[in-house]
Amino acid sequence: MKLRDLAARLGCTVRGDDGVDVLRVAGIDRAGAGDLTFLSSPRYASHLGETHATAVIVPPDVETTLPSLLAKNPYLCYARAAQILHPPRRPAPGVHPTAQVDATARLGEGVHVGAFAVIGARVRLGARSIVHSHVVVYEDVEIGDDCVLHSGVHVREASRLGHRVVVQNGAVIGGDGFGFARSDDGEYEKIPQIGIVVIEDDVEIGALTAVDRSSLHETRIGRGTKLDNLVQIGHSVTVGANTVMAAQAGVAGSTKIGSGVMLGGQVGIAGHIEIGDRVIVTAQSGIPNSVEPGTMVSGYPAVENRAWLKANAVFPRLPELARRLRALERRIEELLNKG
Amino acid sequence: MKLRDLAARLGCTVRGDDGVDVLRVAGIDRAGAGDLTFLSSPRYASHLGETHATAVIVPPDVETTLPSLLAKNPYLCYARAAQILHPPRRPAPGVHPTAQVDATARLGEGVHVGAFAVIGARVRLGARSIVHSHVVVYEDVEIGDDCVLHSGVHVREASRLGHRVVVQNGAVIGGDGFGFARSDDGEYEKIPQIGIVVIEDDVEIGALTAVDRSSLHETRIGRGTKLDNLVQIGHSVTVGANTVMAAQAGVAGSTKIGSGVMLGGQVGIAGHIEIGDRVIVTAQSGIPNSVEPGTMVSGYPAVENRAWLKANAVFPRLPELARRLRALERRIEELLNKG
Amino acid sequence: MKLRDLAARLGCTVRGDDGVDVLRVAGIDRAGAGDLTFLSSPRYASHLGETHATAVIVPPDVETTLPSLLAKNPYLCYARAAQILHPPRRPAPGVHPTAQVDATARLGEGVHVGAFAVIGARVRLGARSIVHSHVVVYEDVEIGDDCVLHSGVHVREASRLGHRVVVQNGAVIGGDGFGFARSDDGEYEKIPQIGIVVIEDDVEIGALTAVDRSSLHETRIGRGTKLDNLVQIGHSVTVGANTVMAAQAGVAGSTKIGSGVMLGGQVGIAGHIEIGDRVIVTAQSGIPNSVEPGTMVSGYPAVENRAWLKANAVFPRLPELARRLRALERRIEELLNKG
Repeated sequence: MKLRDLAARLGCTVRGDDGVDVLRVAGIDRAGAGDLTFLSSPRYASHLGETHATAVIVPPDVETTLPSLLAKNPYLCYARAAQILHPPRRPAPGVHPTAQVDATARLGEGVHVGAFAVIGARVRLGARSIVHSHVVVYEDVEIGDDCVLHSGVHVREASRLGHRVVVQNGAVIGGDGFGFARSDDGEYEKIPQIGIVVIEDDVEIGALTAVDRSSLHETRIGRGTKLDNLVQIGHSVTVGANTVMAAQAGVAGSTKIGSGVMLGGQVGIAGHIEIGDRVIVTAQSGIPNSVEPGTMVSGYPAVENRAWLKANAVFPRLPELARRLRALERRIEELLNKG
Repeated sequence: MKLRDLAARLGCTVRGDDGVDVLRVAGIDRAGAGDLTFLSSPRYASHLGETHATAVIVPPDVETTLPSLLAKNPYLCYARAAQILHPPRRPAPGVHPTAQVDATARLGEGVHVGAFAVIGARVRLGARSIVHSHVVVYEDVEIGDDCVLHSGVHVREASRLGHRVVVQNGAVIGGDGFGFARSDDGEYEKIPQIGIVVIEDDVEIGALTAVDRSSLHETRIGRGTKLDNLVQIGHSVTVGANTVMAAQAGVAGSTKIGSGVMLGGQVGIAGHIEIGDRVIVTAQSGIPNSVEPGTMVSGYPAVENRAWLKANAVFPRLPELARRLRALERRIEELLNKG
Repeated sequence: MKLRDLAARLGCTVRGDDGVDVLRVAGIDRAGAGDLTFLSSPRYASHLGETHATAVIVPPDVETTLPSLLAKNPYLCYARAAQILHPPRRPAPGVHPTAQVDATARLGEGVHVGAFAVIGARVRLGARSIVHSHVVVYEDVEIGDDCVLHSGVHVREASRLGHRVVVQNGAVIGGDGFGFARSDDGEYEKIPQIGIVVIEDDVEIGALTAVDRSSLHETRIGRGTKLDNLVQIGHSVTVGANTVMAAQAGVAGSTKIGSGVMLGGQVGIAGHIEIGDRVIVTAQSGIPNSVEPGTMVSGYPAVENRAWLKANAVFPRLPELARRLRALERRIEELLNKG
């Protein structure tokens, strides 16, 4: 594709030769002829002299002799360019002869249903959605248009997925929440989990992630939110829009997570609390209480990020501090005895 | 269902109009006509005035004008009421024509085996058990009566499951334990994992949870124990009765967990140790050593819960403490120089 | 098998009666007639008097009247003996009639492909490899000789597995990495993950572990490395040879892990850093920065292991230290006021 044609599709300006051919994207250090790369930060501008890329995406204020796409947010422009240069392989429309599709299910136009997929009673599957082989969709599930469910995904009864939802392999949507009532003799009685899961438009769910159905009403993942692999979302949790959770994060039941939130890897959030919009929780932190919007927290239990960083800087010196305290106590004792 | 009929099945007393119809359960804030709700704690008694529920489960000493079921443990009563009002959907008995059931397998009366399920040689499946589609049961497995295995569950060779065991989607029972011997040149030699997994009666296992087979003898999950999602149980671990583990908890190999234990989310337990009965481990704690029965521990590495809470309260003040210590040292230095 | 025959196959020396029959391996406390056991450490030598084992593997310098195999590394010798006495059950060669094997796939000699397995276009499967039922292999995947893929494994497009790779149930190899570019209005644009996963020879991957495909180039797991269950490997991570990661560990994107590294359970490693060869990270530690080869680190954020142990010993005494500091301040105040 000519650089000018790509620029036209991306709606951005070219600097330099707009007739070069770009075939694929590549990292700045590995790029070669035909590759489009990008400069994520002006501080890597020195790499521009060494790259063998055919073209580069740069912020408008960065100078380079390479043919360039100018973009205020080069990483975002790169994402869109990569989508154009590397369109996902689409399995052909149609239902594989081995798939078990219930007679009452309604499939939209252009869907693909792979080998051994199971589509339950009264399921609705939107137009052009792709259900790979070995996906199981229980009864009464609704799935919107242009979704992709990779092999090994299990969607439990009555879950509702919006449009353009992507689910990576092995994820489980709508498994029973962890609800048991304890009797006086310490035995647990199961509380039927009669609520559902709602996944809004443009959500992506990682491999082997579990989103539990609600005990009563709904568990909801908001529009544009992205969950990485092996994430746990407890029953009746609600997550706002455009929130991201890195791998192995976990959110306990009934907690409300805002929009634009970022949870680092292995973060744990307690149940029945509220995490405000735009909160950032750094990796491995544990959050026992609600967090105000716009704050950045760290630690276990988490505190404001800077306080945590400063306290951690002192932590390895604790034995030394304890020794110095003991020494001071002795000196004062001596001082008083002398005095 | 008339409230009096539900009360009769639950064995509890009605106060007020026992002829009202209850159709389903609901949370106290969302309940409407036909809904049965419950009061989990007397401190929420003020909500009783506002709810639109038709009836409520309350402790005997709580006053309300609503038709009420009286129960010392309202949450437990609610669990049982919900089980009656919301019986689980049962797939019809029978073996799906696509299922692969080995000729030597023995299936009990009334079982359901779903599409594409694989039942290996010499497997025994108890009466009325439900094996959903896409479940794989390796050879020589024994499964008791009234079990439910959701789609995507994998049960490895020779595992033994008791009665009324529920396994959520994607869980793996009996995968190889992580056992390797290190040679002098740093390479690892696999140790065949020749033991089995035993799951006792009334256990529930969450989605995408892994219970490894033993290296030699058995890994055992005791009666009535409940494991949440994404939990890891290492080889040769034994867990007592009525223990609960929240999501993403992990127990390393050969550890012995008692009965009535509670592990919070993301808790990690080291291998080859012993966790006594009724121990409570709060979320994200890491347990390197054995823990005495009846204690509550927290932290990483975990200490007694109160000591941890108090130390954490001081932790963010570490930089201030270090400054104050330095200031004291200077003052004493000055004092001594003066003196 | 006669003890002398086993010794011959293992290349080690017998002490005592080499004509006894050993049928299986067992732990020293449970061993009975026909069992071969081993002494993992000289400090357990007292158990030798009580065991009912028929034979034992011991270091040459340990005295016992039992027929013995002498080995400098008894655990390693035990691993190899167990492999001989307990050869894995091999499903018969052949492709199950229900398996869907693409016409362009090439299967090596003696492979087993189980029920409902899906083998995509242009896949190459090496000689004697075992693909259990319900495995899905996307297009363009290469799998070497003598591999074992357990049921429920999903291998995404263009992944490459070496020889003798073992993958436990439910693992996902090559799922999309977690790559999104954030726009100015806070929405996320997906970055196509166009790289692959490479798994070298003799790797074992645990149940429900996720190894993400690279965004651009490759994610690589080095020769002989062993990953436990529920582990997360982010996109473009590279792991060296003979590294072990315990369950629920996670490595964020683009990080480079050396050879001979050991990560404890639930360890978290940040992205874009480097963990040197032979580094040991104890369980639950969180690693924000690169770690020098040969070091042992602990904590969150991790520091050198001994410093962490010492600081932790002081941690629960923080409230006491704060009180003592305050008391000192008061005494000095009094002293100065007096003076």
